[in-house]
Amino acid sequence: MASVLIREAKEGDCGNILRLIRELAEYEKLSDQVKISEEALRADGFGENPFYHCLVAEILPVPGEPQGPCAVGYGLYYFIYSTWKGRNIYLEDIYVKPEYRGQGIGSKIIKKVAEVALDKGCSQFRLAVLDWNKGAMDLYKALGAQDLTEAEGWHCFRFEGEAMRELAGK
Amino acid sequence: MASVLIREAKEGDCGNILRLIRELAEYEKLSDQVKISEEALRADGFGENPFYHCLVAEILPVPGEPQGPCAVGYGLYYFIYSTWKGRNIYLEDIYVKPEYRGQGIGSKIIKKVAEVALDKGCSQFRLAVLDWNKGAMDLYKALGAQDLTEAEGWHCFRFEGEAMRELAGK
Repeated sequence: MASVLIREAKEGDCGNILRLIRELAEYEKLSDQVKISEEALRADGFGENPFYHCLVAEILPVPGEPQGPCAVGYGLYYFIYSTWKGRNIYLEDIYVKPEYRGQGIGSKIIKKVAEVALDKGCSQFRLAVLDWNKGAMDLYKALGAQDLTEAEGWHCFRFEGEAMRELAGK
Repeated sequence: MASVLIREAKEGDCGNILRLIRELAEYEKLSDQVKISEEALRADGFGENPFYHCLVAEILPVPGEPQGPCAVGYGLYYFIYSTWKGRNIYLEDIYVKPEYRGQGIGSKIIKKVAEVALDKGCSQFRLAVLDWNKGAMDLYKALGAQDLTEAEGWHCFRFEGEAMRELAGK
């Protein structure tokens, strides 16, 4: 089996990351919501104060193979702030291409996020999952996550577009 | 009726903010989870790269009254990153002391967050609500928010403590 490397993304990965972001949104049946561009990803993730950080899962070429390394998944996260626990991490996206699932790549990304979180003094990291994505839910639970919507009743709310402009009186 | 001012928090507000954070956690029946200190709030919110921003709702004294302004609510937020829409705001906490509810203070905080979001080029802001907190849910919906757990099936997950250390192999 080819070996997998989980590494920090570089600016040159943004094209691949955007392709994977689009694939994930398609998988989530919400692809009409993707408005981001490669330029925005480059500017927002690789400036002086990056708005996000990203891990890339890369399949390393077998020696002698002409093909270079290939990005097959990613985990995009940023730092958030809990008024209970202080600085924490939010894993906004985690995705592995369908043909590379079942090899533990998702778990490797999650483990790397946990490492980063502990290294940065965070006591937790959060993420959101769609309820019909049973494979993902089961994986996160098996890795020790708690479903806070189930356990405590948390619902995710969002203000946007016209509603937000009306609120702001603009 | 006394007038209310929604303003940006200053470092000297951290003692009041912490008291309100504890009240909110108590209201949410989750007060055992609060581990933050006033010192941490000062360091994390008022350094060079603040981890969070905070709005304070203040009742202004009636002229001639000996009492100074009084903090009766807060909204604590930070910037997050959507891979669909770019930079956005997350409203981590919003709280108004019970005896000051029903005067539109919560709505004023929400409106101010919407203003900040638009000023900063954000197209949305998110928050999480407990399902038994019907008053809050109804308010946010009346103000135009979408319940994404209900509409799309999003569940909030969290990794922490032992599970996180095990994942990181530490």
